[in-house]
Amino acid sequence: YFLVEICIMNKTPTIHNIINARNIIYRYLLKTPLYFSSYISKITGAEIYIKFENHQPIGVFKVRGGLNKLYNMQDDEKKRGVITASTGNHGQSIAYAAKTFGVKATILGPLNTNPSKAEAMKNLGAEVILYGKDFDEAKDYAYNKSKEENITYIHPANEPLLIAGVGTMGLEIIEDLPDVNILINPIGGGSSICGNSIALKTFNPDIKIIGVQAERAPAIFKSYKTGKMKEDPLCDTFADGLATRMPYELTFSIIQKMVDDIILVSEEEMEKAILLLFKTTRNLAEGAGAASTAAALKLKNIIKGKKVVLLLSGGNLEYSKFVEILKKWENYKFE
Amino acid sequence: YFLVEICIMNKTPTIHNIINARNIIYRYLLKTPLYFSSYISKITGAEIYIKFENHQPIGVFKVRGGLNKLYNMQDDEKKRGVITASTGNHGQSIAYAAKTFGVKATILGPLNTNPSKAEAMKNLGAEVILYGKDFDEAKDYAYNKSKEENITYIHPANEPLLIAGVGTMGLEIIEDLPDVNILINPIGGGSSICGNSIALKTFNPDIKIIGVQAERAPAIFKSYKTGKMKEDPLCDTFADGLATRMPYELTFSIIQKMVDDIILVSEEEMEKAILLLFKTTRNLAEGAGAASTAAALKLKNIIKGKKVVLLLSGGNLEYSKFVEILKKWENYKFE
Repeated sequence: YFLVEICIMNKTPTIHNIINARNIIYRYLLKTPLYFSSYISKITGAEIYIKFENHQPIGVFKVRGGLNKLYNMQDDEKKRGVITASTGNHGQSIAYAAKTFGVKATILGPLNTNPSKAEAMKNLGAEVILYGKDFDEAKDYAYNKSKEENITYIHPANEPLLIAGVGTMGLEIIEDLPDVNILINPIGGGSSICGNSIALKTFNPDIKIIGVQAERAPAIFKSYKTGKMKEDPLCDTFADGLATRMPYELTFSIIQKMVDDIILVSEEEMEKAILLLFKTTRNLAEGAGAASTAAALKLKNIIKGKKVVLLLSGGNLEYSKFVEILKKWENYKFE
Repeated sequence: YFLVEICIMNKTPTIHNIINARNIIYRYLLKTPLYFSSYISKITGAEIYIKFENHQPIGVFKVRGGLNKLYNMQDDEKKRGVITASTGNHGQSIAYAAKTFGVKATILGPLNTNPSKAEAMKNLGAEVILYGKDFDEAKDYAYNKSKEENITYIHPANEPLLIAGVGTMGLEIIEDLPDVNILINPIGGGSSICGNSIALKTFNPDIKIIGVQAERAPAIFKSYKTGKMKEDPLCDTFADGLATRMPYELTFSIIQKMVDDIILVSEEEMEKAILLLFKTTRNLAEGAGAASTAAALKLKNIIKGKKVVLLLSGGNLEYSKFVEILKKWENYKFE
């Protein structure tokens, strides 16, 4: 049984898995827009297109993966229910999919889970249990509970069906901009950059995929640069979509093979990018969602003259944080 | 020639025109989402769904009409170009469609046109000419110029192809929520409420359509209540999408036949609704886009227990106005 689990965990999704996922998710979701940004193009010297995943029903791309995973469960598994651990976006994705398919969902969050995110999961019908001092304690508790109660545990990243589901985004990008040169993609657990790399490099092998992590949560960046998966003690970015302390086996192995580079952005660079996106596209990005824009501003020399897609992965920013950013950077001028 | 124009102006679009428009616009646009709002449902006692037209490429529903109009022009008309008058959203719609079909567009705006809106039209490739002290002077100039230069003048409201184009939104609403009871729809020139009324009442004759105008720009409200089309001297709302001084023949005749009621909202009610939508859906609405939400809060007794769609018609709010609203209503509590 242990070996079976290892095999599943190491199973890299294929383009066929992503195309299957596409047939499923379009029954439940709309294609999201990819729009040219004249302002960000002007200040970077690149041809910039933004993929607006904040337009998804839960405000973040992850819903693509949750729907694909739950759709593909066996009927008896669905009857028993699912359990997972999350501090926000992944939990909302599983709760949304569970509601869609009439499955009971239990979401474990650490005791310091943001109340508004717990509320959002409850509004989608999930049972939310707060346990433990951090995400890892909540995750272990969820995993043990799944074994005790014989219900399906959904790992937030080592899950081929989640990766295949979010890879449908890559197919949409290729449809809308077949000659894209560069994708800049935030990395939290890594499911979106993995799914997008598989989809995009199948149809456009010359594309460069650049990952973005936070200076204040650099576990995957450091592991990628050293070639060794290693936990990092630093993990306190405000961009909770990037706050991963430890790389995951499946996504890390795909990142090593398919991602061309990873760069870091600071808290302040993400804050300024949130304001830039709000002022010029009138969309609200969360920290992880603005990280690709922050990276584009840092990489002007590399992206100049290229067709570049920035993944605005989600928009679930706390209102109070937005107000803080607006007041802090009100008079900042972008060039 | 004069008689021909009168006939065209009075030609009410049919459901067939809207279905034809749908076949055209989906080559260029995506369907927009209709999402349930748990928070606004809770505070109104109704089942509230929001139609997010701010997700359109130019941030407003009007692009549906512009694309349908220009697609249906004759080749020789397209070669000569188009001209229209606008203070913002309509002009962007025509500029976007003109760019899509490789047509030269000239947009007349009054001298006090907001510079950022003029810039947006120029970025889409239109020639922007500022003339006259108000919209009507700009409009007359555009019309005369169209006759002198033998190019097609596009009226912002008396244009069946614009109305049929925006009516595709109504088809999307019916697809997603066939048993909708009430649509609350802002009224500026009236094209969206007309297109939506034709589409929705064809498939769901029991639906009630409620229009919203601004207290500070009540021309169509007053004309509707008295049964007589009449200019109103008051027209200074911050919601420029609602700022119509004089009803238009074609849209007004459809409104009289098909709209069940029109109500007014104040400047402050729209400002508060902008903040409510931002805090609870993380979408930025312009004044006209928030007017339907402001109206829902006023109509709690009427909409209680019903399935209600609020048209968030657009999101092109000036950043400085948003900051003003945020500071003014920061501590306001919605109940």
